[in-house]
Amino acid sequence: MATASCPSLDALPTPPQTLVPPPPSILSQDELKKIAAFRAVDFVESGMVVGLGTGSTARHAVDRIGHLLRQGKLRDVVGIPTSRVTHDQALSLGIPLSDLDSHPVVDLAIDGADEVDPSLNLVKGRGGSLLREKMVEGACKKFVVIVDESKLVDYIGGSGLAMPVEVIKFCWKYTAEQLRSLFDYAGCRAKLRMSVGKEEEEEPFVTDNGNYVVDLYFERDIGDSWAASDAILRLAGVVEHGMFLGMASTVIVAGELGVRMINRKPGQC
Amino acid sequence: MATASCPSLDALPTPPQTLVPPPPSILSQDELKKIAAFRAVDFVESGMVVGLGTGSTARHAVDRIGHLLRQGKLRDVVGIPTSRVTHDQALSLGIPLSDLDSHPVVDLAIDGADEVDPSLNLVKGRGGSLLREKMVEGACKKFVVIVDESKLVDYIGGSGLAMPVEVIKFCWKYTAEQLRSLFDYAGCRAKLRMSVGKEEEEEPFVTDNGNYVVDLYFERDIGDSWAASDAILRLAGVVEHGMFLGMASTVIVAGELGVRMINRKPGQC
Repeated sequence: MATASCPSLDALPTPPQTLVPPPPSILSQDELKKIAAFRAVDFVESGMVVGLGTGSTARHAVDRIGHLLRQGKLRDVVGIPTSRVTHDQALSLGIPLSDLDSHPVVDLAIDGADEVDPSLNLVKGRGGSLLREKMVEGACKKFVVIVDESKLVDYIGGSGLAMPVEVIKFCWKYTAEQLRSLFDYAGCRAKLRMSVGKEEEEEPFVTDNGNYVVDLYFERDIGDSWAASDAILRLAGVVEHGMFLGMASTVIVAGELGVRMINRKPGQC
Repeated sequence: MATASCPSLDALPTPPQTLVPPPPSILSQDELKKIAAFRAVDFVESGMVVGLGTGSTARHAVDRIGHLLRQGKLRDVVGIPTSRVTHDQALSLGIPLSDLDSHPVVDLAIDGADEVDPSLNLVKGRGGSLLREKMVEGACKKFVVIVDESKLVDYIGGSGLAMPVEVIKFCWKYTAEQLRSLFDYAGCRAKLRMSVGKEEEEEPFVTDNGNYVVDLYFERDIGDSWAASDAILRLAGVVEHGMFLGMASTVIVAGELGVRMINRKPGQC
């Protein structure tokens, strides 16, 4: 894929033009995220309703949309933010904002992901806003996911990092144990997500919706992720989980050797 | 079923002893609820962890448990309340209380229901505490449901009254429309539940968990309630719904002609 055709890359370091791997120091992980994000913004057209993702990669995309609006290269874009943080960022950039109640059909959403498996199923929500992301990205005609290479995994949970589940506060320990025991066969551990509060003491992380997050860690593949999804959702204390199945249309992967784009095959899940 | 063997009915009007229907005025709906509730409390044994339901029928059962504890006929019962209202009621009666975090296995739960279908699937939550009820009643070894005859329906939603769905506040209109369109084939209407606030003005009803409730009304049978359940739970804005499928072990039905008990058949769903 020729990067020359990508006007969004003009401000970035020129990607390597050969197949010889450059020294790892050439592009930082953040620069890779920026390359993927800028490429995703190429999908945005004037007049579109665009879901604005949350997290360190999506932040670059939102910045870029604001930049193109200011330059007049994009017009009449309406953003649907997926978190309070993104709402504030977009507002500061002058991107007109709305919500799903007013715009129930979203033309395009752009967001990062914590994991991408070979079927383009995702793990998201390590940033803590999985529920709003899932609502907005579930409402969109096209969902473009932007990641650096490190996010590609063989199976959901394969990074060994968290698969987050948003749970109600009421009896969260009970719900966490229910979750853990669902995936006992995969060596699952369940851990309440903590954050550092005002008093500099650790306290439970609270989502934009006033819920807790239980992070699940798997030692082995959980198998059929669609069945796992339904099993998790059937637990009464669960609000939502971080598996985004069958939702991504396109995944843009930035690596040391450039950007590649993977499209969902029709009927793939 | 001989009522003479039921010590819990000693304070109640003697039920009719013949098959001749008495005038409808003999037992009020509340008295019927009380008869069913007292019969359910016969299942409670000393030392049990008991889930305490919410609503006008369950209230009688909680009263009865408190009464038997004070009389010394029951000992060492621990109650797990399913709502703040029931928590306060049980506290005022001196029933020792705990929660699922401390007692993840509940011996018995007793609660009312808004609808009971022929397979003992229920609609619950018109009282607004479906989520905590579902957590507690999902954790119990035996779940006894107490209703008066008016709650028996041919199919879920068959009363024409609400099937409640707890949703997050964020973009609730979008979620309500998603819910309605799921059941378009059954003539579904979706309505945000309102309540009268402090200023005597109508405002959205808020659950114990800080969420809204969207009430669904069906003109026709929705068909496979298990498939409907999964479809609802897959919507990102949904926290939980009021269908309690495959959960009730026994349903106690109080009618003008006495009390009857319906047990779930093994494998029934």
